[in-house]
Amino acid sequence: MSFQVVRTSHAEYFVTDLSRARAFYVDTLGFVLTSEDEEHLYLRGLEDRVHHNLVLTLADHAGAGHVGFRVASPADLDELETLAQHQGLFHQRVRDNTEFGVGDALRVQDPFGFPIEFFYETRAVPWMLQAYDAYHGAAVMRLDHVNYLTPDIGACAAWYQEKLQFQLSEYTVSVENGRDRLWGAWLRRKQTSHDLAIANGAGPRFHHASFIAESQATLLRVADILAAKGAVNHIERGPGRHGTTNAFFLYLRDPDGNRIELFTGDYLAVEPDWQPVRWDLNDPRRATFWGAEAPSRWFNEAMNVYHWDTGEAMAVRAATLPDRPDSVD
Amino acid sequence: MSFQVVRTSHAEYFVTDLSRARAFYVDTLGFVLTSEDEEHLYLRGLEDRVHHNLVLTLADHAGAGHVGFRVASPADLDELETLAQHQGLFHQRVRDNTEFGVGDALRVQDPFGFPIEFFYETRAVPWMLQAYDAYHGAAVMRLDHVNYLTPDIGACAAWYQEKLQFQLSEYTVSVENGRDRLWGAWLRRKQTSHDLAIANGAGPRFHHASFIAESQATLLRVADILAAKGAVNHIERGPGRHGTTNAFFLYLRDPDGNRIELFTGDYLAVEPDWQPVRWDLNDPRRATFWGAEAPSRWFNEAMNVYHWDTGEAMAVRAATLPDRPDSVD
Amino acid sequence: MSFQVVRTSHAEYFVTDLSRARAFYVDTLGFVLTSEDEEHLYLRGLEDRVHHNLVLTLADHAGAGHVGFRVASPADLDELETLAQHQGLFHQRVRDNTEFGVGDALRVQDPFGFPIEFFYETRAVPWMLQAYDAYHGAAVMRLDHVNYLTPDIGACAAWYQEKLQFQLSEYTVSVENGRDRLWGAWLRRKQTSHDLAIANGAGPRFHHASFIAESQATLLRVADILAAKGAVNHIERGPGRHGTTNAFFLYLRDPDGNRIELFTGDYLAVEPDWQPVRWDLNDPRRATFWGAEAPSRWFNEAMNVYHWDTGEAMAVRAATLPDRPDSVD
Amino acid sequence: MSFQVVRTSHAEYFVTDLSRARAFYVDTLGFVLTSEDEEHLYLRGLEDRVHHNLVLTLADHAGAGHVGFRVASPADLDELETLAQHQGLFHQRVRDNTEFGVGDALRVQDPFGFPIEFFYETRAVPWMLQAYDAYHGAAVMRLDHVNYLTPDIGACAAWYQEKLQFQLSEYTVSVENGRDRLWGAWLRRKQTSHDLAIANGAGPRFHHASFIAESQATLLRVADILAAKGAVNHIERGPGRHGTTNAFFLYLRDPDGNRIELFTGDYLAVEPDWQPVRWDLNDPRRATFWGAEAPSRWFNEAMNVYHWDTGEAMAVRAATLPDRPDSVD
Repeated sequence: MSFQVVRTSHAEYFVTDLSRARAFYVDTLGFVLTSEDEEHLYLRGLEDRVHHNLVLTLADHAGAGHVGFRVASPADLDELETLAQHQGLFHQRVRDNTEFGVGDALRVQDPFGFPIEFFYETRAVPWMLQAYDAYHGAAVMRLDHVNYLTPDIGACAAWYQEKLQFQLSEYTVSVENGRDRLWGAWLRRKQTSHDLAIANGAGPRFHHASFIAESQATLLRVADILAAKGAVNHIERGPGRHGTTNAFFLYLRDPDGNRIELFTGDYLAVEPDWQPVRWDLNDPRRATFWGAEAPSRWFNEAMNVYHWDTGEAMAVRAATLPDRPDSVD
Repeated sequence: MSFQVVRTSHAEYFVTDLSRARAFYVDTLGFVLTSEDEEHLYLRGLEDRVHHNLVLTLADHAGAGHVGFRVASPADLDELETLAQHQGLFHQRVRDNTEFGVGDALRVQDPFGFPIEFFYETRAVPWMLQAYDAYHGAAVMRLDHVNYLTPDIGACAAWYQEKLQFQLSEYTVSVENGRDRLWGAWLRRKQTSHDLAIANGAGPRFHHASFIAESQATLLRVADILAAKGAVNHIERGPGRHGTTNAFFLYLRDPDGNRIELFTGDYLAVEPDWQPVRWDLNDPRRATFWGAEAPSRWFNEAMNVYHWDTGEAMAVRAATLPDRPDSVD
Repeated sequence: MSFQVVRTSHAEYFVTDLSRARAFYVDTLGFVLTSEDEEHLYLRGLEDRVHHNLVLTLADHAGAGHVGFRVASPADLDELETLAQHQGLFHQRVRDNTEFGVGDALRVQDPFGFPIEFFYETRAVPWMLQAYDAYHGAAVMRLDHVNYLTPDIGACAAWYQEKLQFQLSEYTVSVENGRDRLWGAWLRRKQTSHDLAIANGAGPRFHHASFIAESQATLLRVADILAAKGAVNHIERGPGRHGTTNAFFLYLRDPDGNRIELFTGDYLAVEPDWQPVRWDLNDPRRATFWGAEAPSRWFNEAMNVYHWDTGEAMAVRAATLPDRPDSVD
Repeated sequence: MSFQVVRTSHAEYFVTDLSRARAFYVDTLGFVLTSEDEEHLYLRGLEDRVHHNLVLTLADHAGAGHVGFRVASPADLDELETLAQHQGLFHQRVRDNTEFGVGDALRVQDPFGFPIEFFYETRAVPWMLQAYDAYHGAAVMRLDHVNYLTPDIGACAAWYQEKLQFQLSEYTVSVENGRDRLWGAWLRRKQTSHDLAIANGAGPRFHHASFIAESQATLLRVADILAAKGAVNHIERGPGRHGTTNAFFLYLRDPDGNRIELFTGDYLAVEPDWQPVRWDLNDPRRATFWGAEAPSRWFNEAMNVYHWDTGEAMAVRAATLPDRPDSVD
């Protein structure tokens, strides 16, 4: 196999009201609206050269749609199709613009129940990086990563590493009887801390997509703006610094309850002999470097994911490891 | 009466280990050490032109000592002495350098039990404002304010306004049967949001002294530094933005458990027709603009204060109003 | 005399195109538009509780109008009128709303040719401090100070100190034969570094009005925005840090060529025994702390001022001291 | 050929006084000192997992030593040796620790006269990313890129792209008779704007090595610190924002006159269909986005480079294109 996954490139969320979602994502948070139709908003960040990093799809329920991974060449889709076939996974080739702005694509339901998509081509868009008169809100720059919850943490992390060649940047262990059990994995394709985080929990569920804010200052400012708009209930956790990845974060709920993270300031992971960073689930600095606990709700709630073929929500199985640090209710 | 209180100028804390306190305040937080002797550390901020904004006094217990108010001229001490006499308050004139670095002073136990001091002269010190090679930690600039807890909130706030000519910048009310009852008062002499905050609670107790950090960035950085030093337990609340005063904050506990606040970014209060800002105790944006609750401990714990004359801890009486928002445990 | 000047409260600029000026000041820089009519824009900052900090008045030429000083009570106007009378200065009482949003006022041509105005009342406006959804551009908070050029630097600085009770925060000297000659004076009424800077130069001319940007970050951002809009020619000097006052600065020219400064991060000047800071005109850190020279144009060009009564531009006399450091062309 | 250059990993500078250099780079700028001996300082950044990103070598002259490129595996050195042989370039294999902290290496004099080195192994060092108590000065995080001057800009940029597989992120053209002539090339291996910038000019000369500062704030702070230390003469250009790459910058001269850049805030360049950004040499926003000119000295002066084998300074040939924008003296 010689394909290359370049990065996690976009996510899809279901929303029940596009104009309310537009006010939240575009007007308040500072996403760039690339395009819209009656059933979708196609959003990107100021640094993006791809058509969208988030598709909001009108539905009668909230939840997560698929995750789009960009590959390095069109031929990689054939290689990945062969892989899906060998693995007995649901897969489907779709033509250019089946998803607006995206070229030919391969849709796959991964072995753990997550709907994913591979593509190479994306419709050209203006690069807004120096269009500073368009910066506002958190000044969303690009998608950074997505976060899965699954009871199959070991197998899932292994599959993305072995089959899709993700590399392990950091990991969390639950220590049982003196033995490390993998609790979470931060996996990268691009040269930053991660493209995909996988955590132990009831699943398959989608915990959040995470977008880069321009700076600490814009990430803090968006909390100010939400408060100014009387929308503090959208703020779920933070702002704070993560121990894992070292980044500043703020977790928000959109008007439908979907969760996103704003994120800034991790690191460049470029060295070929990278030694993964190990964290203990109960290290008080792990989740929030400054020691504050995440609220229970942050652990309890996550988004359903759906099958590519049937559109049905995937059945959720319970976690087998503890799903949070001992100190969180 | 024609005296003028210029500002809240210094606070005194009791600590049980001066070298441990020095490591915390000077090395970690970034206070400037003006001077020290076997029983004291005299600290100031980078912007200060006064000898100290915090005296740490060696004792066998933690707790708050006195609050020092600077006045506009030496003759103001006589006027204030007359006031103390008329009010029947414990008061005492002390000579130059009774408190090192401070000139002639008047010590008074205020009617609510807080030991305070008035002075005009202060020993000259180098202005460190542009000594950027000395900035580190939070880059503490100056004392901003102190915060009292008292069951006599109404009388106490009135006394500082009527007798010492403080002005009301903002206030919090507890609404009972549709009527506002004063719960907290933010009072100023200098032209910023406040020099003295008085809140309802069991007292007399001292809740915190608050020091200006150079910027949001240095305030956040000091949380990073504490975590890096394995001292996250010193972080009690925040970082966040207050609704009242609009400032960024971080509450810390020193190694003896004394509480300080780092604070930055309130406003200039200079207009002669200032209309005080009213807040409802249960407004979710009041305490933290972004909606997060303060931990119970922040409400439950405070420092004892002592009598100037006897050195005995002042007896604490219970609050008569609720001492926290309904939403806090 | 017992009046109190509270602060420099507003400036007036002449512009030749109100809609172009509005695009610059409101849309790009982030002033709040309080009100407008066919001949004026009334602007304020996000922190302001006064009706305006800048009036843009339609004219057939650029230039500076008057400077508005707020006083502590209505009766202060009578005291100031007496002063003007004794000094033989042109003066005129005008009624409420002669300048929209301003109450009864006293207009005076100061002895050095500058048109100034004193007032107490100002029309109430919403406080925008926590209206973070309205922050954009540099997030202009309030007027900080104005800067005069005059050949009569000594007399002018003395007059504002002796007659209007301004205090000297910092000063610059031109050293001639080992003797200090006053070259510039930074004078305050409110408790910050200054309300009025007076510099040696051909005059009377108005060099700039200076407005507080929310932070270093927003001050830098407005330079980005101007570049993004293809308007780099509006950027005249900076961003940089001043040695005098320690503040970050950026000098801009408005579409008519009027100069403003954006300014942030000086200090609180509250101590009653303040010792003024002395700077040598040729100290490389004086004007820009990091050593960069101001461009010649910054020294060569300034705005005319006009007579309250005749509307004629005041005649400009040459400076008698060198008008810039030796190192500037 | 199947080698992979991972990134530009370190630079070497010659200095005439190691303790003076240490005070500048470590105490003032915030490099981490990994190791030192009587003839070298080995420095790294807070984010580095390599032994050093800058070697300061004691010499009787200033100037640039070699540039170290890290490769993806030890076997890549053999491939690169074959390339050097085919190209007829001076090359030499050296053993582990010939350069302290670096494993087996291949030294090559590139066709344009620059001494370069390839290596895979580097001695393990503690990762300081979360050692926030060690952050100071600009908080140098890692090496970003190096910048060459050469009269052979076209051939040199082509060689690094064709032979070493660098990719073109941005480029500058000098327009002559309506035709673009390549004036500068920003080339990357890692996924940021560049690892190597090559500009037209008399050469071979080394213009600067560029190091990531943690943030805009720390980059500005280091200018404050230099001024506070009376060392403003070390500040050559900036702070400002580059049009090319969009990054904040500050150019400094070390105590020997060697030039470095502090740099922060470019972008992630990860898309497989990246379209290079074109800039006109005379675009006023190209070099400094806000329109300010670089000083002539920034164009006139650069560091000599030396031959690996003889240690002799490489002969400098004049540029054939204009070496600066028309607007610079």
